[in-house]
Amino acid sequence: MATDEAGRPRVVVLGAGFGGMEAVRALARAPAEVILVDRRNHHLFQPLLYQVATAALSPAEIAWPIRHVFRREKNIRVVMARALSVDLAARRVKTTGGEVAYDQLIVATGAAHSYFGKPEWEAFAPGLKTLEDATAIRRRVLSAFEKAECAPVGEQARLLTFVIVGGGPTGVEMAGAVAELARDALKRDFRRIDPRFARVLLLEAGPRILPTFPEHLAAYAQRVLQAMQVEVRTGAKVIDCDANGVALEDGRIEAETLIWAAGVAASEVAAELPCEHDRAGRAKVTPDLSLPGHPEVFVIGDAAAVTDAKGAPVPGIAPAAKQQGKYVARVIRARLEGRSAPPPFRYRHAGDLATIGRSAAIVKFDRLTLKGFVGWVFWSIAHVYFLIGLRNRIVVALEWSWSWITRQRAARLIVAEGPPPSGL
Amino acid sequence: MATDEAGRPRVVVLGAGFGGMEAVRALARAPAEVILVDRRNHHLFQPLLYQVATAALSPAEIAWPIRHVFRREKNIRVVMARALSVDLAARRVKTTGGEVAYDQLIVATGAAHSYFGKPEWEAFAPGLKTLEDATAIRRRVLSAFEKAECAPVGEQARLLTFVIVGGGPTGVEMAGAVAELARDALKRDFRRIDPRFARVLLLEAGPRILPTFPEHLAAYAQRVLQAMQVEVRTGAKVIDCDANGVALEDGRIEAETLIWAAGVAASEVAAELPCEHDRAGRAKVTPDLSLPGHPEVFVIGDAAAVTDAKGAPVPGIAPAAKQQGKYVARVIRARLEGRSAPPPFRYRHAGDLATIGRSAAIVKFDRLTLKGFVGWVFWSIAHVYFLIGLRNRIVVALEWSWSWITRQRAARLIVAEGPPPSGL
Repeated sequence: MATDEAGRPRVVVLGAGFGGMEAVRALARAPAEVILVDRRNHHLFQPLLYQVATAALSPAEIAWPIRHVFRREKNIRVVMARALSVDLAARRVKTTGGEVAYDQLIVATGAAHSYFGKPEWEAFAPGLKTLEDATAIRRRVLSAFEKAECAPVGEQARLLTFVIVGGGPTGVEMAGAVAELARDALKRDFRRIDPRFARVLLLEAGPRILPTFPEHLAAYAQRVLQAMQVEVRTGAKVIDCDANGVALEDGRIEAETLIWAAGVAASEVAAELPCEHDRAGRAKVTPDLSLPGHPEVFVIGDAAAVTDAKGAPVPGIAPAAKQQGKYVARVIRARLEGRSAPPPFRYRHAGDLATIGRSAAIVKFDRLTLKGFVGWVFWSIAHVYFLIGLRNRIVVALEWSWSWITRQRAARLIVAEGPPPSGL
Repeated sequence: MATDEAGRPRVVVLGAGFGGMEAVRALARAPAEVILVDRRNHHLFQPLLYQVATAALSPAEIAWPIRHVFRREKNIRVVMARALSVDLAARRVKTTGGEVAYDQLIVATGAAHSYFGKPEWEAFAPGLKTLEDATAIRRRVLSAFEKAECAPVGEQARLLTFVIVGGGPTGVEMAGAVAELARDALKRDFRRIDPRFARVLLLEAGPRILPTFPEHLAAYAQRVLQAMQVEVRTGAKVIDCDANGVALEDGRIEAETLIWAAGVAASEVAAELPCEHDRAGRAKVTPDLSLPGHPEVFVIGDAAAVTDAKGAPVPGIAPAAKQQGKYVARVIRARLEGRSAPPPFRYRHAGDLATIGRSAAIVKFDRLTLKGFVGWVFWSIAHVYFLIGLRNRIVVALEWSWSWITRQRAARLIVAEGPPPSGL
């Protein structure tokens, strides 16, 4: 047993995303030592990451130091280290900060981008998962305008072409935000180019954008994007990416800036667990979200392939991860306290929402569907509400009000490029 | 002549610091084409950079996109490129974005750190000039606590030792801010270490800290620092820096984190101008701030060695650079408009101010001297006032109020390391 000095069993949680944070929160004051391992020092509110990538918000406004969140919970320890692998037999996790033994383990390591077997595309078409991704995309987008201002006329069109690959919520939000940046925030700032004529394309391989939304809302979103002069192309399958653009089955698009919002794959730690996986590398779990044959190991969030009561896959969204985190904590608490196990996990789909731009969003909650300005207000309030910390809520609400009135962007910074931190 | 299509002469300004920005602002609507060249896309409010380095403010709160500031001035063009060298004979500037011809040139390229002939120290003891420097120092400071939390007990003392080299205003402000971070913001967040026992040292080679301030104010600052358990050592000359600490003439200090606030040297472009320079590489200029023998080339701010009417050197501070920028713009406007030249540059010293920490600052303005809480309020209002843009003023005022009430830091992010951008 991996008990601590007080003889309490130890629960180790890998990953401080929505699922991991919720599980740890629900284990506060449980009769166990809880160790939360994350390679970052901050929890990130990923749904607003595209706003950092498009200069609307600053990184600190959507991130919060993990250990600060749990500072008052003395049974919770936060370790900044990268989880490397899990030894199920020995009940130990290997991390960059050493080995950690566990009695119960929650794997909540999330997902990374998937380039469908072409990892070399990442250098040309970065995705959006971390703060470093977001500031890197921000640098690329803003630098494209800077380069175009100095470039010979013949090169300006390519420099001012922005291609977003993937028509899910992230792709739609990025396309809308890039278009607004060009048409509004930057419109007066250059002398040799007119940013309003920047070309923004949204490519979706499937038959329509926003496949998880009802068709009429997706069609509305497409009309709003087109009104913002975003070229929406469905059935557009990317067959190659390089430094100068993207190749489709029916032709090439020359572009300086490519952004990847198309596919995700489970993190390595989850993909390497000795169990069945789905095509995206997510671990297939039992109805109580534990690993088959290993009731002491749970996998949740984007690391897990979970199906609901009807056999449909649970979507990889924040509310689903949070419900799973809370559920797993209940299972563990029941065990710790010698109570009987709760019934199998049941996913309750609250709804879907996506914003397209200034004053336009789509919302589908049960029988409630909203769009346009009302949807956008709902979207804004919901996102501010779910941020961690009163300070972040106030600051983000202020930043949005300011941007809405002035049509400006608060964080138009081009800062240095760099690899993610190694070691820690 | 480097005239544009309208036949207007061209003024090129290198550097968008305090001096360059002020010069360009004063040349708005002048009968000339003005080209402002900077390797960054933002003007940086350097006096508050230490607050980014110590997690109190976000980068975007003290930076503003240069071209946005001048968006309405059609005679002003902003070019994001690095100035490489000046060809005085051909009246051309070489930049990473190509060559630019000029009729009048203002060199306002500022200063970099000086390691007194030991550039290899920079890797161990980074200085604080750019946003990248600030986020790099923030990462090092916050990571030191993270490492200490996981380290064997014997290594914790070294990991929790922070050495700031240089007892000028920047060093004093950094020392106070690091001490506050450890003693207040982080105090509850760790389990295996107590951040309140972190050791913070301020090393000054000279006989006292804050040599530009009256002695009684410097003594007060030292007492405040000591009350915050900062060890202030004067007469402490650094003879070596490495990855594990710093060597002084009378012994060694083992420390994970070194921060350099000791010396500056003029930027390369200024240091390579064919003229006399002072020991820091600053170009010695004539009484109208032009280069001897080149009345069409001006050097201002930290790039120039300027003496006041009494022969004393003008200090390398923001108000001095701004006065010089404004003066040089007046000289150029007089030439453009065929008026007689203004009298030689005269520096008016407004005063000195430095903050030491929560509710303590020192202010010396003419006969007015302030310290303690009153000084701190004065310091805060002055700094908010001088920020560019109403939005930044509001956000910084709010951040400070919030931090003051909660004793928390808003931007405790550890994000990736990286070299400054190349090319652009």
